[in-house]
Amino acid sequence: MRIALDAMGGDFAPAETVKGALLAAKEFDVDIDLVGLPERIELEMGKNGRRSPRVTVVPASEVIAMEEEKIAQAVRTRRDASINVAMSLMRDGRADAVVSAGNTGAVMASALLMLGRIRGIERPALGTLLPYNDGRVFLLDIGANADCKPAYLVQFAQMGSSYMETVLGIHHPRVGLLNVGTEDVKGSDLAQEAFERLRESNLNFIGNVEGINVHKGIADVIVTDGFTGNVALKVAEGIADYILEQVRGVIKSSLLYVSASLLLKPALRRVLKQLQYEEYGGAYLLGVNGVVVIAHGRADASAIKNAVRVAKMAAEGGLVASISASLTAATATAAAQ
Amino acid sequence: MRIALDAMGGDFAPAETVKGALLAAKEFDVDIDLVGLPERIELEMGKNGRRSPRVTVVPASEVIAMEEEKIAQAVRTRRDASINVAMSLMRDGRADAVVSAGNTGAVMASALLMLGRIRGIERPALGTLLPYNDGRVFLLDIGANADCKPAYLVQFAQMGSSYMETVLGIHHPRVGLLNVGTEDVKGSDLAQEAFERLRESNLNFIGNVEGINVHKGIADVIVTDGFTGNVALKVAEGIADYILEQVRGVIKSSLLYVSASLLLKPALRRVLKQLQYEEYGGAYLLGVNGVVVIAHGRADASAIKNAVRVAKMAAEGGLVASISASLTAATATAAAQ
Repeated sequence: MRIALDAMGGDFAPAETVKGALLAAKEFDVDIDLVGLPERIELEMGKNGRRSPRVTVVPASEVIAMEEEKIAQAVRTRRDASINVAMSLMRDGRADAVVSAGNTGAVMASALLMLGRIRGIERPALGTLLPYNDGRVFLLDIGANADCKPAYLVQFAQMGSSYMETVLGIHHPRVGLLNVGTEDVKGSDLAQEAFERLRESNLNFIGNVEGINVHKGIADVIVTDGFTGNVALKVAEGIADYILEQVRGVIKSSLLYVSASLLLKPALRRVLKQLQYEEYGGAYLLGVNGVVVIAHGRADASAIKNAVRVAKMAAEGGLVASISASLTAATATAAAQ
Repeated sequence: MRIALDAMGGDFAPAETVKGALLAAKEFDVDIDLVGLPERIELEMGKNGRRSPRVTVVPASEVIAMEEEKIAQAVRTRRDASINVAMSLMRDGRADAVVSAGNTGAVMASALLMLGRIRGIERPALGTLLPYNDGRVFLLDIGANADCKPAYLVQFAQMGSSYMETVLGIHHPRVGLLNVGTEDVKGSDLAQEAFERLRESNLNFIGNVEGINVHKGIADVIVTDGFTGNVALKVAEGIADYILEQVRGVIKSSLLYVSASLLLKPALRRVLKQLQYEEYGGAYLLGVNGVVVIAHGRADASAIKNAVRVAKMAAEGGLVASISASLTAATATAAAQ
């Protein structure tokens, strides 16, 4: 199992990507191609004072910056950018998955350009495990498609189900539709039409899931358009930060509270850790011809390591083949109806 | 100042509505019409063992239940339902505002039927103060319109601005558009078109606000469509509950933690209280010809009291006249361009 890691992607690259690669190679049974500017990577390797026979440097002469403006154009014209070279390794069968903490738009554009879509997929989608219920709820789309058609949402549900089956081993995962109410006829035109199509599909569709129940684990996969999904995910992230800040704030307001909280620290840290998205590895770009994991832009070495871990799990599980087979099955079901 | 309170609306009506009315009449300078089944209301008054010369019972012979199926039809045909009678008091100038913890759809339908829209308003919207930054961020639409046109969002921004000016006294409130990125050209077709129109408007538009920044107080008013707004609000509510549950869970896991947390209880309670939407009174239905406040279905007496308080503030501030004037100003600006 070989993972191509975009060494230059992320706010703290290549320092944290190199460290993360070394950690992952040590902990998991995995080989890593560190793709990027060789001198920068070598410098970081030197700082770490150790190398690994399982971590190889693959040179790429260009970089796409986190805050780049014309992303699509940059990806198309800078063919030797680290993310493009990483994708080409997977395309050519020399790597089993790609991991990047780089600009999400750049990773998506590069994946589409270098790998293309799985046959039959209308729109690839970004999905992620939510940090609730031990990371056993998969939400998609979280930002690849701001405007969606009902048919896209059905494909998102298929891809999310494939993910939960192959990576987490959940048989016949329950699919919910993010909506503003639990009644069948409810929500936007998009949600109402998607509801009907999901009901007619061969998926294990359990109906609408309201925002207030997203974290409750009543569905294994929750589908929505990329606009709503992105807002929901980010609001949740912001609120979690806010609450923990508030708790810290009141604790600091008195010496008694400070002492009491010292005792509680391990407990609170456990909660905090569970709420960190990084623990669950990042976002998957589903629907392209390959396993692509996008770690958070602020990913540190540990987050990079986790992203490598989940990329490996998806590649081992045969995620791409599973999505492809699920599309064929869906088409057969639709034809039989 | 006279408030018509739907005594029969809410999961705990009329017990909590009657108690809430008595509390409000005692604490604020306000008269309350308790609208509903007289014998039920009188029974609750009796249980409380006290009355108030400022709380009057106004009979209504019918009720619209919380879980009713055909809401619009129920509102149209049951003219003597408590919510309809409350609205008619406002329509006839015998009350200055209506408060209900009843079915949101029923309150909206009744308001449209009995009061109608403010001239020029295309779609009324539901807005609420978020429980962050001391309740100084107003989000709308949170569920009245699942599908929106760009022009609606501009009107939502005008109504939200009028609210912040008249009720919270914020001069020239900053308006943000909920979106998936901070760059100007970003998001769904709806968001992109709304962005342009907001920029051309006479509002204090500050640009896009990402989900992760909703709680940060960078905008006083945040506008979005009713689908996204509802999901965002409810996800936030769910996550807040989840985090507090998790904190409780780890604390219970050890006796040491339990002791430490006893010391911290007042501090944690302060955070908890701040996060309760009920503290901020409920949702406003903006754009109808009258002040309408919808309290949470699970509202207790204290939440009802707070809803009466904010309804009074909006009526005193002249919210309806302010929205009307802001529409006129917007039309004049547009004509001058």
